Order: sequence, then structure tokens, then C-alpha cells
Amino acid sequence: MASMTTEMKLIDMERKNISFSVEELTNIIDGSREETAIRRRVEHIIENDPVLKHKSLLHMSREERFTESIRRTVYFLKTLCPRMGWTSQSREARYFERALKERSFVVHSGAFVPSMKSFGTKEQAEKWHKLAANLNIIGTYAQTELGHGTFLRGLETVATYDRATQEFVINCPRISAMKWWPGEMGKSANHVFLMAELVIDGKKYGMHGFMVQIRDLTTHEPLPGVTVGDIGTKVSFETVDNGFLYLQSVRVPRENLLSKLAQVAPDGTYTKKASDRLMYGSMVRLRVGLLGSEVVMPLSKACTIAVRYSAVRRQGLLDPNKDEVPVLNYVSQQHKLLPQVATAYVANFASKQLIKMYVIFLKKVDSGDIEQLPELHALSAGLKAMLTEQSTMGAEILRRACGGHGYSYGSGLPFIVNRMLASCTYEGENTVMYLQCARYLMKCADKARDKKLTGTVAYLNDSSSGVCPARTSDDFLSLNILMKCYENRAKCVIQQAASKLQQKIRSGLPMHNAWNMVAPFLIRAAKEHIMQYLVETSCKFVNDLTCSDPVKKILTQLCALYALHHINNSPGDFITNGCLNSAQCDIAHDTEVYLLGILRPDAVGIVDAFDFTDDILQSCLGAYDGNVYERLFEWAKEAPMNRTEVHQDSYQLLRPYLHKGRDVLEGAAKSKL
Amino acid sequence: MASMTTEMKLIDMERKNISFSVEELTNIIDGSREETAIRRRVEHIIENDPVLKHKSLLHMSREERFTESIRRTVYFLKTLCPRMGWTSQSREARYFERALKERSFVVHSGAFVPSMKSFGTKEQAEKWHKLAANLNIIGTYAQTELGHGTFLRGLETVATYDRATQEFVINCPRISAMKWWPGEMGKSANHVFLMAELVIDGKKYGMHGFMVQIRDLTTHEPLPGVTVGDIGTKVSFETVDNGFLYLQSVRVPRENLLSKLAQVAPDGTYTKKASDRLMYGSMVRLRVGLLGSEVVMPLSKACTIAVRYSAVRRQGLLDPNKDEVPVLNYVSQQHKLLPQVATAYVANFASKQLIKMYVIFLKKVDSGDIEQLPELHALSAGLKAMLTEQSTMGAEILRRACGGHGYSYGSGLPFIVNRMLASCTYEGENTVMYLQCARYLMKCADKARDKKLTGTVAYLNDSSSGVCPARTSDDFLSLNILMKCYENRAKCVIQQAASKLQQKIRSGLPMHNAWNMVAPFLIRAAKEHIMQYLVETSCKFVNDLTCSDPVKKILTQLCALYALHHINNSPGDFITNGCLNSAQCDIAHDTEVYLLGILRPDAVGIVDAFDFTDDILQSCLGAYDGNVYERLFEWAKEAPMNRTEVHQDSYQLLRPYLHKGRDVLEGAAKSKL
Repeated sequence: MASMTTEMKLIDMERKNISFSVEELTNIIDGSREETAIRRRVEHIIENDPVLKHKSLLHMSREERFTESIRRTVYFLKTLCPRMGWTSQSREARYFERALKERSFVVHSGAFVPSMKSFGTKEQAEKWHKLAANLNIIGTYAQTELGHGTFLRGLETVATYDRATQEFVINCPRISAMKWWPGEMGKSANHVFLMAELVIDGKKYGMHGFMVQIRDLTTHEPLPGVTVGDIGTKVSFETVDNGFLYLQSVRVPRENLLSKLAQVAPDGTYTKKASDRLMYGSMVRLRVGLLGSEVVMPLSKACTIAVRYSAVRRQGLLDPNKDEVPVLNYVSQQHKLLPQVATAYVANFASKQLIKMYVIFLKKVDSGDIEQLPELHALSAGLKAMLTEQSTMGAEILRRACGGHGYSYGSGLPFIVNRMLASCTYEGENTVMYLQCARYLMKCADKARDKKLTGTVAYLNDSSSGVCPARTSDDFLSLNILMKCYENRAKCVIQQAASKLQQKIRSGLPMHNAWNMVAPFLIRAAKEHIMQYLVETSCKFVNDLTCSDPVKKILTQLCALYALHHINNSPGDFITNGCLNSAQCDIAHDTEVYLLGILRPDAVGIVDAFDFTDDILQSCLGAYDGNVYERLFEWAKEAPMNRTEVHQDSYQLLRPYLHKGRDVLEGAAKSKL
Repeated sequence: MASMTTEMKLIDMERKNISFSVEELTNIIDGSREETAIRRRVEHIIENDPVLKHKSLLHMSREERFTESIRRTVYFLKTLCPRMGWTSQSREARYFERALKERSFVVHSGAFVPSMKSFGTKEQAEKWHKLAANLNIIGTYAQTELGHGTFLRGLETVATYDRATQEFVINCPRISAMKWWPGEMGKSANHVFLMAELVIDGKKYGMHGFMVQIRDLTTHEPLPGVTVGDIGTKVSFETVDNGFLYLQSVRVPRENLLSKLAQVAPDGTYTKKASDRLMYGSMVRLRVGLLGSEVVMPLSKACTIAVRYSAVRRQGLLDPNKDEVPVLNYVSQQHKLLPQVATAYVANFASKQLIKMYVIFLKKVDSGDIEQLPELHALSAGLKAMLTEQSTMGAEILRRACGGHGYSYGSGLPFIVNRMLASCTYEGENTVMYLQCARYLMKCADKARDKKLTGTVAYLNDSSSGVCPARTSDDFLSLNILMKCYENRAKCVIQQAASKLQQKIRSGLPMHNAWNMVAPFLIRAAKEHIMQYLVETSCKFVNDLTCSDPVKKILTQLCALYALHHINNSPGDFITNGCLNSAQCDIAHDTEVYLLGILRPDAVGIVDAFDFTDDILQSCLGAYDGNVYERLFEWAKEAPMNRTEVHQDSYQLLRPYLHKGRDVLEGAAKSKL
């Protein structure tokens, strides 16, 4: 790869025309100049560590990837972190995942360990936490069953108290009751935090958390009564041994009931100690946490790859008298890419805002104040659903925008897309999430009639006219006007869903039937509330930002593009509710196309600001230098099928027929001579 | 699996309540009772053939699948077909693919062989066709290059005529010019039909097709000047060796120019023999052909799996005083599943209608009449784009509707979804397809002002009022009213796009710039034209169908659901163009929800009618008997990671740390005693 290829020259030229400071934008994305520096240092150390260097993932079998990931993770946690003085509390910690790309024991440290604190007494938490932190035990969070996921009360696993031995006897009464899916449970974990129905003297006490040892600590063999294994291939997550666990009369001591919320005395007396609502807090934590690593980061990666590739991929003549142009010059291509780039920025700002709210909430919880929990629960559920949905769809649009090469694993895009897909289901299936959000909104809509609402639903009180004043394209570039549009639409749609629900109830239907029948409208209400939140939060963030004018301009345009794109994609509810009229919709469409053209020259800079190293991107199409074709060719040559020129196994099957072909063709050639 | 599980009983009950004859509906889908019988016979023979029985695909590496598929295909073509008297011309042939599930040499027989006829003289076609049909040569269609796909004129490979030797010298001038993607080229093919720029005496004559031998017929080694190999892992298509081919001064005799359209005399004289437009005919053929096997069939499979699973998966309490209910009882779940089922039916009817048009066209071509080619080209391009887009999205919705288990390969859904994804790009990238369709529409819109249009665009002449007369839900169940709605919308949006284009041109922009700037509107126009075609074609098919009342009712409801679902999904253009008002949109929404409830009791029957055997479905969730959980468990136990209870490679990495944990825990236990 000696000389500059045409493609390298093209991307070079793009970078010469960027109108703003990429470094400044990177600092804003990271949070500050200092954060950028810390992140880069972590990335540099990990990328240059000889033990952590990835072998090519692609050419490994799933089992090789599984083992390789454990090897890297153990080295990282037990050797590199101590050497660097890094702990899970260090400021560096938030960049480990990005730099490592993939690692093991994420459920262990992200769900098993925190559950000790959420559900255990102080003593319990202390006992298990230290062992887990040192990898002296490997644990997982075993809740989901083969037959039950999101509906917690439906779980079938039972823990029956045996007073005689002061033990709980744990059973899966049927196949569908076995634990299924928990990450790291199949082969790695020797302990599980198990959710099961507590039964004392035949009475059911609901779901409780138990610490259950499942493998022998010396041999790692499953203990008696334990059937455990890997659940087989699934989309992505090759390094995770998602497992099944079937328990038959497995006994654990009474002390293994995690007893922060409730306890069982030796004589079987059950005592409730704290509200179950605290359990929601840990769900909120998981949902808040996943947005950064499973939504914003992969979407930003996909944007980087697709925009850089589009800047060097030339296809077709825009002007019949000129050369072929980069596909990024086509408005139809800009229309695919740039709204996704805008989404990555909006998701970044909104998820950071949610983390801020969560941190404030946590401080209040310490002083016993959980008043904000319903709002935070509804918001995190809705945001989780909306952002995973928009981002997985966005990543898929980006993949398709790369044409055929987007299907090649060499592009890096299939890895990214596959990884994101599961986020629509784990930590709360999205439809259920929207409906939970809607439940909160219906209560708020009810209250709004005679009470002043605050926080994220305050706009429901607003009684000003819903008609948008925009008359020109310039008007539609104003973030204030766009925010108001989304507020008005959300308010109308929420009120409409509430009145549809009331109507069904008044017609004599019981609540649960009425709720079921208007579910599509409730889901829409939740979606439009969340869209309102996303638009408002990101617009306000940008409005309030102190930064250079060129960067402010770019960010303002990205927010406007996001808002306009979603108006144009589904103008229906804006129009039917009188927020916009047909003429305004037409202007909104034209304004979006106008914005695409305005952002086009800065597109490469806007994704460069995500600041992914080539090592982190792992993409032949997205590498910084734009040298896509040579990289793809080098990558393909390493494919296992190319070890030999002739693929013997398949060739042998065809040889007799091909030799006959040779005889015919050579015979024909001879007879011609 | 001895006794009936709860799940098996549930699906049994569903089947007892079906209101129509499933067999009758199956016959309609197949085309006739006789076709159903032929299909079942082919499936029965293939499923029960001991050599064709699949080993479990899942546990094979890509290379094993590749070889296994060739083994099965060679046996099928060379042993079973002759034994059964089956040829590619038999009526049975259209069911081979469905019954075999996967097979090799699809590009060889579906693109290489036909290209001999499309581009070769009669003698050339005869010479190569027989060899290819007998697998005496394996060929592929080498057009796409690393740097160029859809834009044919951009291809860089050059064939220069050498008068001295009467040969063409073929060269890829740079890396990006190498052929890239052709299926079966990497390891299998020894010949390629190569598209290259013909150059004689320095003058360029455009793209021409050449027969090029690339591997030795005795050893199968690449010939001198040929660099060939597999392009590496891509999404799906594990059995296909998509390849790269880099040619350096490779010489082929003059006779290897396929000379139906043009020929080169020994002295280098170039003669054009027929219109290049004939080339479009073969593109139309590929697009028409793929809809059945790559869109309708996989979408129907995904529907079958998701609906059956939803009938047995119980989750949550609809009525708090009753048992858990199948998720199919939730309106939100019906709202995910049933519109996709409707799409599978509509796509089936529409693609069959397209085939009919194509067959009529072919007959006309024989007598030199290619007048209908532009219409057919536009329609097939647009339908290809719209149906691949809707179906891949639909399959993904269905996969998500299966919750966590939809991510497991055991569900069969990841196979189906991954396989479909590529259809949005191959045989014409979808955005390009829409724009080609739009180009035709813009010409028609222009003509419509003073000329009577016929065929699929005749509605553009209609000058009746665009206002929909529907006032009630009953009105919206009328297929005639729904057809009119779509007609009116399409007409308005096409006229709007045309006037936007004219406006840009009048403002002084050159045509190519104007076209680029209104591309998003042109794409929309194409989409809404195709939606109009889909709704009209399927509604008319059902209206004209002779069948029992209950079946007619179901099919009418499915057509209405399809039409209403897409109105409700994006009512914007219906409203802004005055086709529907807000009140009507509200009724349309309610009518869709009403239809979901009406279709719910027949849902299992409607997918049973697709008549997939368990062997063809390959899904633990979708098997006929509903026994999902035991099947998933049996499947998971066979995963390679479960060969041993302890996964030694990973365990050894952790052992020292875990043994420390043992010491701590056992020490603590001892000190307690």
C-alpha cells in the first residue's frame, strides 16, 4: 500500500474542507478536553498491549472466540489493571469496553455484583462482593426462564423453605421453568443470583433472590441436581455462554436468601423489610447504562464507516459530462446517512442527560426519597425502547447504504448490526417498555386536568395553541419552533389515547380489556412522548452549550435535521392534530433536503469527531485513510477458504464431471486443428 | 416427548376453531389442487431421501456447509433427478428449491446458463449450454467489480482485441477493477461469463460479454494470469463461494465474445447486431424470479413460526383474575404479526401477477415486440425494491415478536432474516431501483397530460375527485374504496414530484442536478406507485377468485388489513393530498384494530395454509405440534459447547482464581462450625 490511491486522495480532500474544529467537537462528545485525553490514553495502552491485541476475530470459531475473550479479560483484570492502578471506580473505567471491543464477565460484573448490593444485606454484599470482584467466584443473574421473560410474576422456579434443615429447596417444576438466557451461566458461572418464588408452609411470597452455587469449586463440575449448559448459537454475542439451568431439589442454606428487602427467620417467619419498588431502581440502572455502550457507540461506529466509505466510493455520473462522483454527493445517499448521524448525536446528548437525572435520583434515594422513581422508570423504559429501535434501524440503513460491501464481514457492519439487534429485547422487551411508559403517561394525563405537572411531563399542562407558526424554511431551522411542534404533537396524541381508553371503559369494558384494545394507540403515545423528550433534551443541550460558532452551527443543524427527518417520515400525527398543515409539511420536506446539502461538506468531519481508532472500528470500509479496496482485498485473502488454491473436499465431488468437460472441450479443440 | 404438553394442547385448540378450509387456501396459494399435489410429492421424496437429509446445519463450520451443499446438489442433479425423470423443465422443478432448503450452483444454472442464450449466438449457446447443464463446466456471471456495482458503464475491466492472434486480452487495470461478489466464482467455477469493456484499436465499444476459462480443466488450479479466491464471510449464503477474480493479460479466442448482440470480425471490424435493450430483459427475468423464492417463501416461513409460537407462548395476565394467556391474544402482538401475514399473501398474489405479465411479454418479444419493456422494467424494479424492503422489515418484526427466543438460531428466524437481507442489494440496489421506476413515472406523468395511458399507469389519466367517500369502518373494509385511496395518493404524489422536478429545471438547474435534488420525492413517488399496484393487484385477484365464502372472507380481510395498515403507518401523503381527512384517519385506525380481532381466531389456520413441513421450516418455535420448549432444550443440548460438562480451555484460565474462592468459602464454612 505504498502510494496514495484515488480513494485516499478523496478523503484527504474532504478533510481539507471541514468548516469547524473536529477536536473541539470530540471534546464536547466526550464531555471535556480532559475526558478526551483520559479516553485516548486508555485506548492507546490497550491497543498497544501485546497480550490484548486481537487475533482476527473473523477466522475464529465461536468456541475459540469464547476462550480468547476470557483469556484477554483475565489478563486485563488481573494483570493490566493492577499494573496501571485501574479499578472499576477509576475514571478510566468508562473507556475499558470501548477500547477492549469485546470482553467476558460483563454480566458477572454488571448484574451479578450489583445485585448483591441491591438485594443483599450489608454483610451479604460484603461477603460475596469481594469474592466476585477478584474472580474467585463467577456469577450470573438468573431470572429469565425458558417459558417466561418480561413477566416476572410468571416465573415458575420455586424455593420452598425446609424448617427442619433451615434450607431452601429449589426446583424447576417443568421444562419451561428452567432458567434460560443468563449470560455466562452455561460454562463459566459457579454461582447464580437466582430469582424464584418463595414458598413457606405452602404459602407463596412472590419473587425473591437467592445465592445458589451450581458448580463444584474444585472440579467445576455441575453439582448434584444441577443440569447446566450453553443454549447454543444466537445472533451475535459469540463470546458469551448464555446458559440453561435446570434445578432439581437443590438445597441452599437459609442465609443464601438475599435479605435486604425481606427475610425468613429460622422458624419460617417471613418479614418484609423494604419496598419492592427498589427493585425497579436496578432495572432503571441497567437501562440507563446500556444506552451508551449498546446504542450510542455502535451507531456512531456505523455512521463513521458509512460516511467515510460514501466519501470515497464513486458510482455513476451526476453530471453526464464529468467524472464519476462519490456517492456522498447524491441527495438520496445523504438522506440515508445524515439523519443517522444526527441520531447518534441526539442519542448521545439524551442518554447523558438521563444519566444526570439518574445520579440526582440516586442521591435522593439515599435519603429515602423515591418520589421520582415512576417518572424515571417510565422515561428510561421509553428511551430504552425508542433509542434501541431507532439505532438498530439506523445501523441497518447505514449497512445497506454501503451496498454489497456492507454485507461483507470485512466492512465491520454485520458485527455492529447483529450486536445491536438484541438490545431491542433484552433488559425489557420494547413493546412492554412502551406500554409501561404509557401507563405513567395515562396517569399524568389524568392528573394534568387539575394539577400542575413538573419534570419531563410538564408540557402536558401547557394550554397554548398547538398551531405551528413556521412559514419559511428558516422558521423550520429554529430549534425552538421544532421543540414546540413535538410538544404539541405529544400532548395531543397522549390526550387522544387517554380519551380512547376512557371511552372503552365508559362503554363497559373492564380496564384490562380496554387497555388491550387501545394498545396500539398507547404505544404511539409513549413513542411521541419520548420523541418530544429527545428533541427537547438535545436542542436545549445545544442551545445552552458554550462553544465556538462553527461547532454550534453544526450541532444546531444536526438537531434540526433529526427533528425534521422524523416530521417528514411520519407527518400524520402532526397534521391530524392540527400542529402542522399541508403547506408547512411541504416546507419541512424542502428544509430537510436543504439541510442535507448544508451538512454534506462537513460530513466526514462530523463522524471523525467520534474519534474511533482503526483498531476499534475494525472495518475495511471505515478506516481513517479511505484505502478501502486494497484493505478489502488483503482481508479477503486471509479467509480460511483461501488456504489452498483448490478446495479439495468440494473439488473431489465434481472432478469426474469436470474431467468429462475437459475431454469434450479438448476433443473439440483438436478436431478443429 | 411422550405426553401432550400445555403448549401442544393450546395449538390443538386453535386448530379446532378455524373458520375455513385450510386445504382450500393452500390450493389457492399453490395455484391449484394439482400443484399442491405435485409440490407435496417433491417435498416427500426429497425429505425422505437418505442422502439428501440434512445434517444439522448449525453445528457445521462454513466450509463444512459449503462442501455438504455441493455433495447434496451433485447427488440431487446427477442421481435423484435422472432416477425421477425430473429436469429443469419439469413441473416439479419449481419446488426443488423449497424442498432442498439450500443447494449449490444456483448462479451457475440461474445466471451463467441463461446468459449463454441471452448473449450468445445459437451455436455458442448450444456449445456451452450442454456442458453446463451436465456440470461438465461450472460457470458464473462475473459483472460486479470491487469498485463498481449497479453502474454498469463504470466497470473497469477491459478486453482489448489483438488482431495478430485473433484474441481478446483481458485486464483488470487496478485493484478496484477486479471482479468481486459473483457467486460460485471463488472455488467452484472454471469458467466465467465476464462483462468487460471491449476495446479495438484504442476505441471503446462499451460492455460486452466474454466466455473466460479461469481454472485448469484437469487440476482445477487457476490458469496463468488469474488470481481467484473466496471473498470471505458475509451475511448468510454460507454455501456460496462468492469470489474475487483479478485478470492480468488473460487471453481468450475471438470466438469467446458472445455475439448475439454484436460481433468482431477477424480483422477487428465491429458489427452491432441487436439492441442492447434486450439486456434489460434478462434483468427483468432475474428480478421477477427472485420474488417467489427470496421474498414470498422466507416471509411466509417467518409468519408461520411467529404465529404458531405466539399461539403457545403464554405471558402475563390479560385479565388479572384469570390464567396467563397466549401472547397472540394481545392486540399489540396481533398488530406486529398479522400485517406481515397479510404482506406474505399480497406479495404472493402480486409476484404471480408479475410473472404472468412477464410470460406475455416474452411471447411478444419472440415476434420482435418490446414495446412493453419500459413498463415491465419499471414495475419489476419497483416491486423488487418494495417487496424486498417490506419483507425484510416484516421478517425482522416477526423475529422480535418472538422475544428472546427469536435471537436463538434454534428458532430458525436468524437464518431466514439474514438470508433475506441481501435481497435489498443484489439484482439492483433498492434506491437505484426506485429511481429507475421514478424515471418511467416522470415520463408517464408528462404524457398523461395529453395522451391516454394504458396498463399499470392508466390511473394517472383519471381526473375524478380524489376525496375518499368512506364514512364508517364498513366503508374501510371495502376493497374498492381502499384501491381508490391508493390510486389517488399515488397520482397526487407522482404529479407533485413531477412538478417539483419541473420547478427546479425552470429555475435554471441542469436536468441531472434537478433530478438529484428532488431524489427523495422521486423515490416517494415510485414507492407510492408500487403500493398502488400491490393493493390493486391483490384486491382484484381476491375479488375475481372463485372459492368458498369463508376463504373469500379471509382473503378479503387480509387485503384490507394490508391496505389499512399502510395507511395508518404513514397517513401523511393521504392527508396532505386531500385523499383522507383527520376523521377518516381515525376511523381507519380503529378499523385496523377491529380487523386484527376478527382475524385472530383464524391466525394459525392462515399460516398453516402455507403448508411448510417441519423439515422445511427448521424451527423449534414453529413446528406444527407447538411443542416449543422441549424442542428448544433438545436442540440446545446438542450445541458444540455442551460436548463436555466443563469447558476445559476456558476453565484452565480461571482455575487458580476459583480455587482461591473455594479456599475462602470453605475456610469460612469451617470456621463457622
